[in-house]
Amino acid sequence: MAEALTSSIEFQMSLLLFVALAGYLLASRINQSAVIGEILVGLLIGPSLLGLITYTDFVRSVAHLGAVILLFVIGLEFKLKDIFNFKYSVIALIGVIVPWIGGFYTAKLFGYEFGSAVFVGTALTATSIAITANVLREMGKLQTDAAKAIIGAAVIDDVLSLLALSMSEQIVSGTFSIASIGFVLLNAFAFLIIGAYVGTKILSKLVAKVDETDIAKKFPEFVFIFAMMIAFFYAMVAELIHLSAIVGSFIAGVSLGSVVLRHSKDYKEGAEYLHIIFASVFFVSLGILADFHALTANVAWFLIALTVVAVLTKVIGCYIPAKLQGMSQQDSLVVGFGMSPRGEVAMIIALIGLNAGLIGQDIYVSLVLMSLLTTVLTPIVLRNWLYKRSFVDFFKRKRITLQ
Amino acid sequence: MAEALTSSIEFQMSLLLFVALAGYLLASRINQSAVIGEILVGLLIGPSLLGLITYTDFVRSVAHLGAVILLFVIGLEFKLKDIFNFKYSVIALIGVIVPWIGGFYTAKLFGYEFGSAVFVGTALTATSIAITANVLREMGKLQTDAAKAIIGAAVIDDVLSLLALSMSEQIVSGTFSIASIGFVLLNAFAFLIIGAYVGTKILSKLVAKVDETDIAKKFPEFVFIFAMMIAFFYAMVAELIHLSAIVGSFIAGVSLGSVVLRHSKDYKEGAEYLHIIFASVFFVSLGILADFHALTANVAWFLIALTVVAVLTKVIGCYIPAKLQGMSQQDSLVVGFGMSPRGEVAMIIALIGLNAGLIGQDIYVSLVLMSLLTTVLTPIVLRNWLYKRSFVDFFKRKRITLQ
Repeated sequence: MAEALTSSIEFQMSLLLFVALAGYLLASRINQSAVIGEILVGLLIGPSLLGLITYTDFVRSVAHLGAVILLFVIGLEFKLKDIFNFKYSVIALIGVIVPWIGGFYTAKLFGYEFGSAVFVGTALTATSIAITANVLREMGKLQTDAAKAIIGAAVIDDVLSLLALSMSEQIVSGTFSIASIGFVLLNAFAFLIIGAYVGTKILSKLVAKVDETDIAKKFPEFVFIFAMMIAFFYAMVAELIHLSAIVGSFIAGVSLGSVVLRHSKDYKEGAEYLHIIFASVFFVSLGILADFHALTANVAWFLIALTVVAVLTKVIGCYIPAKLQGMSQQDSLVVGFGMSPRGEVAMIIALIGLNAGLIGQDIYVSLVLMSLLTTVLTPIVLRNWLYKRSFVDFFKRKRITLQ
Repeated sequence: MAEALTSSIEFQMSLLLFVALAGYLLASRINQSAVIGEILVGLLIGPSLLGLITYTDFVRSVAHLGAVILLFVIGLEFKLKDIFNFKYSVIALIGVIVPWIGGFYTAKLFGYEFGSAVFVGTALTATSIAITANVLREMGKLQTDAAKAIIGAAVIDDVLSLLALSMSEQIVSGTFSIASIGFVLLNAFAFLIIGAYVGTKILSKLVAKVDETDIAKKFPEFVFIFAMMIAFFYAMVAELIHLSAIVGSFIAGVSLGSVVLRHSKDYKEGAEYLHIIFASVFFVSLGILADFHALTANVAWFLIALTVVAVLTKVIGCYIPAKLQGMSQQDSLVVGFGMSPRGEVAMIIALIGLNAGLIGQDIYVSLVLMSLLTTVLTPIVLRNWLYKRSFVDFFKRKRITLQ
C-alpha cells in the first residue's frame, strides 16, 4: 500500500512540485538562484538524506522532458549568428583541453590506472548549459556578451566532449583511429549546420505558413503542438548521433525564435509555461540523482581534488582565451565560471564509463558529486561575487554621473 | 540501436506530438472533434495496425499527467454549486444501475459465469468525464445545463463505480458486507466534501495570499507551480482512497477557479498550455492502448452486443431521469450520450479484473474495445446529430424571428 502510493505518478509529481516550491522558498531566504534551492531541497528529500523519493523512471522521464523544454526556451531567445562564431569556438576548444589534462593527471596522482584516468579527463571536459543559462536568464543577463559566449562555447563544447568520449573509449579499447574520430566529428557538425539551416530556412517559414492555414484558425493550439514536436524531434536526432538531446532542442529553439504568429496561440509563451513546471522538476531531479552514502573517506579526498581541478581548469581554460579576445576582466571571469558546471553531461559520461567497466564505483561517485558541486557553485559565484561587483560598479558609475 | 532509439523519451514524445498533429488534420478533414482524430491516429500507429509505438511506461506516464491536467483545466471553469446537486445525483444513480444490469445479463447470455458477469456489469457503470467534457469544451458548450448535468453526474458516477467495483470484488470473493461497502462510500464522499471545502475555503484563499507575498513578486512563476502542486496532490489523495485520480484534480480545479491574481503569472493560462500538449498525448494514448489483434470472431459478437448494451443502457438510464426532471428532449439526449463514453475508467476496471483472475483475456479485450468504441461514438453523436440539430433549430428560430 505505502509502496503503491509512493510509486504512483500523482504522488511523485506532487512531491516534486512541492520540493520545487520549497526550493524557491529556500532560494529566496538565502538570496540565491531558484536553481540552487531546487537542487539543495532535491538532495534533502533524495536518497542522500530523507530518502522520500528516488530517481525512478518517472522522475527520469519528467526531468528529461524538463531539460529538453528548458533548452528550447533558452534557444528561443537567441539568434543563430549570436552563437556560432570563431571566437567562441576557441574558448570551447581550450576550455576542453585544459580540464582534460587536469582530470587525467589528478586521477594518475591518486593512483588510478591509465584507462580510468582517460575517462576522468573526459568527464571534466563537459559543460552543462542548462544551469548557467537558467541562472543568467533569472538575472536578466541572457543578452550580454558573456552569456552569448558561454552559450555558444557550451554548444561547441558539447560536440568536443562527445569527441573526447569517443576517443577515450577507442583509446581504452585500443581501436583508436583518426578516421573514426573524424566520422564522429563530421556527424556532429553536420547536425549543427544542417539542423540550423533546415530550422531557420525551412521549418520557421513552415510554422509561419501553418499559422495562416484554416486548421490553425480553427485550432489555435495546433502551431504550439507543432513547435514542441519540432523541439523533441531535433532532440531525438541529436541523441541519435550521440550529441546530447538538449543541444538538439536548443537548435530548434534558435530556429523558431523569430517567427511572428497571427492566428495561433503563442508557442513561446506556451513553452515558457511548460518550462516553469518541467525545468523545476529537472533541477530537483539533479539533487535526487546524487547519493552521498557511496562516499567514503578515501574517495572524499579524490572528490575534493577533482572538484577544485574541475573548476580551476575550466575557469583558466576559458578565462584566458576570453581575455585574449578582448573581453573585460569581469566578463572573462563570468565566462570561465559560467562554463564550469558539469551538470548532467558529466553524470552521463560517468554512467557510460561505469556501465562499460572502465571506471569503478569510487570514481563514478566522485564524478557525480564533482558534477553536482560545480553545478551548485556556479550560480553562487555568479550571483554573489561576479554580478554583485558589477552591481556595485553600476552604482559607482551612477554616482559619478550624478556628481 | 533501433530499439534504443524507439525507447528514447525524445523519440516517443516527438512521435506522440506528431500523431496528435495528424489527429488534428484528420479531425479537420472529417469535420470531427480533435479528440476523435487523435484516438484514431493513435490506433493507426499503435500495436493494432502499424506498431510504431506501444503503451510503454513513458507513454503511460505522460498520458497520466495529461488526464490529471485535463480535468484540472475543466474544473477551473466550474463553480462548486454547478456540480453538486440532488438532480445530478439521481441521474448518476440510475445511470449506474441500468448499465450494471445490462452488462450482467449480456455476459450471462453469452454463457459467462457469475463472477465474470458481475465484473462486466461493473465495467459498464463507469463514465469517462474526460472525453465528453473536452468535446463540449471544444464546441463551447461547457456552460450549458446539459454539460453541468453531465459533469456533475459523472463525478458522482465515479464514486458509485468505485462502490460497484468494491462490491463486485467482495461478492466474487465472498467477503461482501454492508459495513465494508459503507466504509468505501463514506471515504469517497468524505473526500469530495472535505476536498471541496478545504479547496474553496482554505487553499484558494491561500493561493490569493501567496500572490501578495514577496516571493510571488520576485518569482512570478511560484503561484503556478503551487497551483499545479495542489492539482497533483488532490489527484494523489483521490487515488489513495481508490477514486480515480482525475476526480481529485477536477475538484482542485473547481476550488481554484475563481482566484484572481495580481502579481503572478496566470495559472489558468499556464494549465491551459500544459493541457494542449499533455491532453493531446492522453487521447493519442487511448488509441495506442487498444490492440485489435486480440479480437477473435467469437469475441467480436460479444463485443458488438456489449457495446450496443453499453450505449443504450447509459443513454436510457440517464435520459429518463433527465427528462423527468424537466430537461428538454435535446438536452436529455445530450446527457444520455454524454454519459456513455467509458474511456479509461472501464479500461482500468477491466485491468483490475484481469489481474485478479476474475475475467479472462476474451472479456478483457472486449471491455477495452467496448470502452474505446463508446468513447469514439460519443463525440460523433454530439457533433453530428445532437448539436447539429440544435444548429438547424437555431437557424429555424432565426428565420421565424425575421419574418
